[in-house]
Amino acid sequence: MKKAIVLLSGGLDSATCAAIARAKGYVLYAMSFSYGQRHRVELECAQRIALLLSVEKHSVVDINLRNFGGSALTDEIAVPKNRSISRHTESEVPATYVPARNTIFLSFALAWAEVIEARDIFIGVNAVDYSGYPDCRPEYIQAYETMANLGTKAGIAGGKISIHTPLINLTKAEIIRKGVALGLDYSQTHSCYDPSPEGRACGACDSCLIRKRGFGAAGIEDPTLYAEK
Amino acid sequence: MKKAIVLLSGGLDSATCAAIARAKGYVLYAMSFSYGQRHRVELECAQRIALLLSVEKHSVVDINLRNFGGSALTDEIAVPKNRSISRHTESEVPATYVPARNTIFLSFALAWAEVIEARDIFIGVNAVDYSGYPDCRPEYIQAYETMANLGTKAGIAGGKISIHTPLINLTKAEIIRKGVALGLDYSQTHSCYDPSPEGRACGACDSCLIRKRGFGAAGIEDPTLYAEK
Repeated sequence: MKKAIVLLSGGLDSATCAAIARAKGYVLYAMSFSYGQRHRVELECAQRIALLLSVEKHSVVDINLRNFGGSALTDEIAVPKNRSISRHTESEVPATYVPARNTIFLSFALAWAEVIEARDIFIGVNAVDYSGYPDCRPEYIQAYETMANLGTKAGIAGGKISIHTPLINLTKAEIIRKGVALGLDYSQTHSCYDPSPEGRACGACDSCLIRKRGFGAAGIEDPTLYAEK
Repeated sequence: MKKAIVLLSGGLDSATCAAIARAKGYVLYAMSFSYGQRHRVELECAQRIALLLSVEKHSVVDINLRNFGGSALTDEIAVPKNRSISRHTESEVPATYVPARNTIFLSFALAWAEVIEARDIFIGVNAVDYSGYPDCRPEYIQAYETMANLGTKAGIAGGKISIHTPLINLTKAEIIRKGVALGLDYSQTHSCYDPSPEGRACGACDSCLIRKRGFGAAGIEDPTLYAEK
């Protein structure tokens, strides 16, 4: 049985990514981060998803990106609402971008992979219906994998480390259909950047808009609990 | 005045690297890590060096690599002593290797660089008198820089991020001569992997042996306080 590290945020994408890794027969080692995010409810979702997917171990790493600031997800910067989400270009990185977030997350995953002798890391990045983040693009992931193989004991010993991105070329609707086919319960996932104190989704941030549109396009009922307006 | 992030462990190499960055005219933002290392005395050295070099800010990031284990520096694995340090090959990574350590450290430096709009990161890695770590080699650093420029807002906006490694091709003796020429007080640095409870160097681990040999070859008196045997 091959081991895989799966980065699990508690969102729709990472849950689907983990379900795909499990369907491929990997024993899952799930890793989540408490990084000072506003939407900490996602960590509770990560725990529920980890249970549903019978992971071997779930590690929640505590790092404080609030020390650095610079993002609407960790700072007192307003989360943008109800804007058009089809007009992103590469030069337009949104306020919800967290500096070097995926680079930090993948680096901890890499450390854990070395220790448990896993050679496979799964991350649910997506370059289609994404929010304009530079660290969700295939060229970035490819460069990360190259670096990881040069900078680790495992890599130089010839045990190639692979960064798997099964969602990278899927639309949100395709991701949702895939997860439903694998039996994933999306009511247990959380996408909203700016939830209510009770953990309900705002329905208006980029992440909510993309999620809603995805369920619509997939023709699948959206199980998300939205906050009353 | 250009800003630079300098990774500062409190050791001889990183102190010299920071002194070089300062001599180049950068305003220094020093970053250290409390990562569950046995030799925590190095963090006190990092603080003293930061003061001596008049850094603008010193950030000590708390991350627990003990969660992962797998290294003599963080685990109850014995630190190797009095072994020949000239016989390392790339396939012989020592027990003191910490999985993905420099990758994790550089990732936090990258995040901080983005937030304060610095484009320069200094790390005192060394590929000559080093201890056989894969993440101290030039090809690794080059791959890291490529990845960093693809995965950040700064990078894709064209503000190239550079990873500076001024020590990478120097011998330990050359590093020490350079630091002394810049007025660095090496009695304030710490290299030992296995210090006594009072913080004295063991004199027998790889790091002590390389340091001693460096002072000898440089013809400079070694100011290190070694534990009585």
